[in-house]
Amino acid sequence: MRKIKTYSKLKKEKGLTFIEKEFDETLKSHEVLIKVLNVSLCGTDLHIYNWDEWAQQRIKPPLVVGHEFSGRVEKVGSEVSRVEVGDIVASETHVVCGKCEFCRKGQGHICVNTKIIGVDIDGAFSEYIIMPEDNLYVDDSGLDPKYLSVLEPLGNAVHTVTHFDVSLKTVAVVGCGPIGLMGTNVLEIMGASKIIAIEPVDSRRKLSLKMGADVAIDPINEDVVKRVLEETGGLGVDVVCEFSGNNVALNQSLQYIKKGGAISLLGIFDERTNIDFNEIVFKGLTLYGVTGRKMYENWDQIRSILKSPRFKLHKIVTHEFKFHEMDKAFKVFSQKDCGKIVIKVSEND
Amino acid sequence: MRKIKTYSKLKKEKGLTFIEKEFDETLKSHEVLIKVLNVSLCGTDLHIYNWDEWAQQRIKPPLVVGHEFSGRVEKVGSEVSRVEVGDIVASETHVVCGKCEFCRKGQGHICVNTKIIGVDIDGAFSEYIIMPEDNLYVDDSGLDPKYLSVLEPLGNAVHTVTHFDVSLKTVAVVGCGPIGLMGTNVLEIMGASKIIAIEPVDSRRKLSLKMGADVAIDPINEDVVKRVLEETGGLGVDVVCEFSGNNVALNQSLQYIKKGGAISLLGIFDERTNIDFNEIVFKGLTLYGVTGRKMYENWDQIRSILKSPRFKLHKIVTHEFKFHEMDKAFKVFSQKDCGKIVIKVSEND
Amino acid sequence: MRKIKTYSKLKKEKGLTFIEKEFDETLKSHEVLIKVLNVSLCGTDLHIYNWDEWAQQRIKPPLVVGHEFSGRVEKVGSEVSRVEVGDIVASETHVVCGKCEFCRKGQGHICVNTKIIGVDIDGAFSEYIIMPEDNLYVDDSGLDPKYLSVLEPLGNAVHTVTHFDVSLKTVAVVGCGPIGLMGTNVLEIMGASKIIAIEPVDSRRKLSLKMGADVAIDPINEDVVKRVLEETGGLGVDVVCEFSGNNVALNQSLQYIKKGGAISLLGIFDERTNIDFNEIVFKGLTLYGVTGRKMYENWDQIRSILKSPRFKLHKIVTHEFKFHEMDKAFKVFSQKDCGKIVIKVSEND
Amino acid sequence: MRKIKTYSKLKKEKGLTFIEKEFDETLKSHEVLIKVLNVSLCGTDLHIYNWDEWAQQRIKPPLVVGHEFSGRVEKVGSEVSRVEVGDIVASETHVVCGKCEFCRKGQGHICVNTKIIGVDIDGAFSEYIIMPEDNLYVDDSGLDPKYLSVLEPLGNAVHTVTHFDVSLKTVAVVGCGPIGLMGTNVLEIMGASKIIAIEPVDSRRKLSLKMGADVAIDPINEDVVKRVLEETGGLGVDVVCEFSGNNVALNQSLQYIKKGGAISLLGIFDERTNIDFNEIVFKGLTLYGVTGRKMYENWDQIRSILKSPRFKLHKIVTHEFKFHEMDKAFKVFSQKDCGKIVIKVSEND
Repeated sequence: MRKIKTYSKLKKEKGLTFIEKEFDETLKSHEVLIKVLNVSLCGTDLHIYNWDEWAQQRIKPPLVVGHEFSGRVEKVGSEVSRVEVGDIVASETHVVCGKCEFCRKGQGHICVNTKIIGVDIDGAFSEYIIMPEDNLYVDDSGLDPKYLSVLEPLGNAVHTVTHFDVSLKTVAVVGCGPIGLMGTNVLEIMGASKIIAIEPVDSRRKLSLKMGADVAIDPINEDVVKRVLEETGGLGVDVVCEFSGNNVALNQSLQYIKKGGAISLLGIFDERTNIDFNEIVFKGLTLYGVTGRKMYENWDQIRSILKSPRFKLHKIVTHEFKFHEMDKAFKVFSQKDCGKIVIKVSEND
Repeated sequence: MRKIKTYSKLKKEKGLTFIEKEFDETLKSHEVLIKVLNVSLCGTDLHIYNWDEWAQQRIKPPLVVGHEFSGRVEKVGSEVSRVEVGDIVASETHVVCGKCEFCRKGQGHICVNTKIIGVDIDGAFSEYIIMPEDNLYVDDSGLDPKYLSVLEPLGNAVHTVTHFDVSLKTVAVVGCGPIGLMGTNVLEIMGASKIIAIEPVDSRRKLSLKMGADVAIDPINEDVVKRVLEETGGLGVDVVCEFSGNNVALNQSLQYIKKGGAISLLGIFDERTNIDFNEIVFKGLTLYGVTGRKMYENWDQIRSILKSPRFKLHKIVTHEFKFHEMDKAFKVFSQKDCGKIVIKVSEND
Repeated sequence: MRKIKTYSKLKKEKGLTFIEKEFDETLKSHEVLIKVLNVSLCGTDLHIYNWDEWAQQRIKPPLVVGHEFSGRVEKVGSEVSRVEVGDIVASETHVVCGKCEFCRKGQGHICVNTKIIGVDIDGAFSEYIIMPEDNLYVDDSGLDPKYLSVLEPLGNAVHTVTHFDVSLKTVAVVGCGPIGLMGTNVLEIMGASKIIAIEPVDSRRKLSLKMGADVAIDPINEDVVKRVLEETGGLGVDVVCEFSGNNVALNQSLQYIKKGGAISLLGIFDERTNIDFNEIVFKGLTLYGVTGRKMYENWDQIRSILKSPRFKLHKIVTHEFKFHEMDKAFKVFSQKDCGKIVIKVSEND
Repeated sequence: MRKIKTYSKLKKEKGLTFIEKEFDETLKSHEVLIKVLNVSLCGTDLHIYNWDEWAQQRIKPPLVVGHEFSGRVEKVGSEVSRVEVGDIVASETHVVCGKCEFCRKGQGHICVNTKIIGVDIDGAFSEYIIMPEDNLYVDDSGLDPKYLSVLEPLGNAVHTVTHFDVSLKTVAVVGCGPIGLMGTNVLEIMGASKIIAIEPVDSRRKLSLKMGADVAIDPINEDVVKRVLEETGGLGVDVVCEFSGNNVALNQSLQYIKKGGAISLLGIFDERTNIDFNEIVFKGLTLYGVTGRKMYENWDQIRSILKSPRFKLHKIVTHEFKFHEMDKAFKVFSQKDCGKIVIKVSEND
């Protein structure tokens, strides 16, 4: 037992509490104790912070919040073999059962017994965390740990943009929050022939051009369908990567996508969608729902991405805060005029 | 020029007219003149017959209606090489351009210049028809020509059920009109491990069990989601073949499909759909829109199907009429209490 | 500790010894103790029995031999959750590490740390065996346990015939030992349009026709290439399932396979092969090497196969022996004039 | 009829003859008359020039040789719609039937009735050539026509490196002649994570590093297997692109490829190969034979490649000659110390 500092949801109301809690360091045979170095903020964290409807249904306080983190291995369980004390790690945040039909077939990302840290079980806005060995990604790139916490959402981006064949294809990136921006970078690395970003926030649209987009369209002030068709010689795009969860944007994508095209769906929708399904039928489209990261194929791809000369994750980290500045960080995050926000929890000493 | 008997849409109103028209038999180099032996009725024909909203927008009278047909080759153009006089043929009904991006890549089913006989150009409710050589399927099975007209919708069924891997999988067939019934038969041939038919019309539900379904569920009087889950040990089905175009049925399928599952969509929807897209995202589903038949992969598969000991197309042809009984045939068809309706146009003499 | 009867390789010479050995029943957290009910003989067992060159290099006596088995769960480790005492089980025979790149990506069949029971570690010709929980397949079909030991090689057959798309395709099955025969049955279940068996042993060739082959060719007395082309209208087969490991047969298959075709290779070759690789290049062929069973996709497929009305595993079990008749069983096996040989180790009482 | 200058094989002996021939300009409905601007040399041309064993069996003089060309459209047939007079074009060199099973399914690259220009029918070492409309690739990139003749072998490179998934993967390029070099460039564009070139000729090895290879290994003076394993952390490469047709190189690739890896085979072998097929089986490898270019998917990909900021085709064109210097060009080509050799036939005036 030791006392550790955390940001936790203690009551069924808005905000997080900076609080010390008792932490049992006892490790099961395949568990690993990690000193958390950095965490980063995700939309899910904001839902929990704001205690919105989704959070009220899903979250059961008290809970240590946060799931995107990097850290240093402090101690390993008796049967751990892939990870050693001192390793710098990022982490898959879905703790899966390993027993269900999907886990057994290498589809852990849709495990029926998934527990997400910081959502279903205690998370990473904390000085220490215990994770199953299988979840850990040992960094060998030497990247500053402040970026490693971001590998988890990078994994979402990788899952989204690699599911369909995008090399030498025209691709629309719908929504340029941090994951869309990272997806844009991955698309450039993979040789997409034209990357068309669609995003209403000015700063994010500008950032998309730095991350590899060839064109950035403002859906508020431009006719998106017309513009995408212009940019593709009237043909439409081969692939749509949907990061927005916006019903209007989804309808537009059905208009400007090429026949036989493919849509990868990561964005979560606030409400039921209202679309013309006949567009899917008559255009011969394929749609795919992205959940989590393919374990562990997407993490292997991340390892390659970190080594690419075209990798530029650092450009999307626009804000850094200290651990005690969590509320300040959430305030900036709420205003959306930012890329990724990273928080330092501990020094890597 | 010769005079031929046809059923044509002459005026912008309900019904078809049995009329003689002048027919120019001149063939281009790759065209083939065919004496029509049998035709069969498709939902599209009924839309045109009834002159509904879709028909009013799409159809430009005067037009010879009908697209599903079998026939005997009477004459061939100067450069025709795949087809000979006397051949008994069925026919792909989409006349494609061969020049667009999709045709050039072997995806003629989504050709951007498709013309459908009986819809965009003169069709098959006629004693004679001229078709491009490429569209013709020469029968070598010896099947009674009265069934050959049905190969075209069988091709839709094949496209729908073969796009995803169904062998040794559990599959729901949503909607057991003639195409759904044929799909059921193809699923049985391909070794689907459990075929669950969902259909409100009693006679079609019974027919589905004869065509290979293991279970047939009545969506009016049964709780579809509960029943499908029971039949799959609580797991849900691997694949959904959606033939109904019904919004309620689509929503149900999102509930009873297994995580990581796939939905093949052939049914056309009457109106915009209202669904929870997050089901697609969180369950990691794949959806595919089926249009036409893969040229000519699906026709090759048909050739194999016709030879299967488990093939039973004859069971779904429930009504046969003579050419002059067209109105009678449409009346039966309107009442839905039927399988496939076949009409004899000419004797194969 | 208890004394158990086993067949073991004790010395570096031909034969096995029927011997009692001390058996430590202590279970690790994820292990399961199983009373062995039936075992069956595999070519690998014969290599070990005969102490041939391969065996001399791979096997380190003393070793309990045997890997194909069925059994009843007697005791489970502290963290076992998928398996219960009393369950009737078959078993994946490759014990994999779960840590390597391949295991982590759901490709355990090519785990770089694989240990095979009866080859690398103690096996199943024994009254009891301890297995990792993950390896066990719990039967829910009620099949006589004497057939369940055969599910492991059935898994090889499933891996071989399902890797490429075979439904509605013409397929050559090269070599009709037990695995080829089971593959033939699986091909029939999956709706292969024509199954052409090629096998020199008369009794096996006859058996192949009972298992679903449409044609059986004798490669000793017939011109294989000519015959296959005749049976396929001069086109050749779409897919070759190579179970023979025979260089002559492999060369023939390159002749009678269709352009763009696929070859699934399970048979192990005695020596280096000598082939015309340009056939692969110019015909645009795809080849795939089959090792083990896809974990656990192939086992899920087995579950479906056991429920198929077209499943007929019982036809390939041609001989049954008692545990003490092992030498007799190996004698029959050596003469090849048999299907699968099953041995009863214990009563299921 | 007009007189045109050509390089033709007139006699069954070494060399080509610079000769005028009568040229019938009459066009069939789908044919196009092209003024040849540039041609480039391929290994096949050298075989024909040298009148080696392969050439003696395949070539029937008199024949205008040459197949890689660019040109300007001079006249179009009556039904031509994709191409206009004045268009600058490159060309698919396989004239396919459009009628066989493969053509009909979008697999024209393995058409059973393929005729190759400059091999089976008159070719492009000529002031004019007539081609079917379908074969023509209309350039919209503005690239100097001297590079456009090289798009045909670029298509081979694209076929070879894109057949398997190479983005974010480690890839070995075996053989760095012009096609291997172009493949290296395409791999870089598509984001292969590490490209390992293997090539004995010094100048080509150096060129490979300029085209995108991360490492270039000399198979004469280095231990290839050891070096590749070193460069991949002992894991081996994910994909091998085999351009050499060398038996020793093929055997090495089976050693240094990763389990579950894939080999794309373009190189033609001089003789039967002698390999250990068990490596394919036990490693679970996939092999694919590359013939021609996927029509017309690979040509669409070429269009994207020409627009990539990372495209550098110009670096591999190391020599340029005038039309009358053909023998000089073949002399340089024979010595292998070159990249691609381009010859100007006519001015684009």
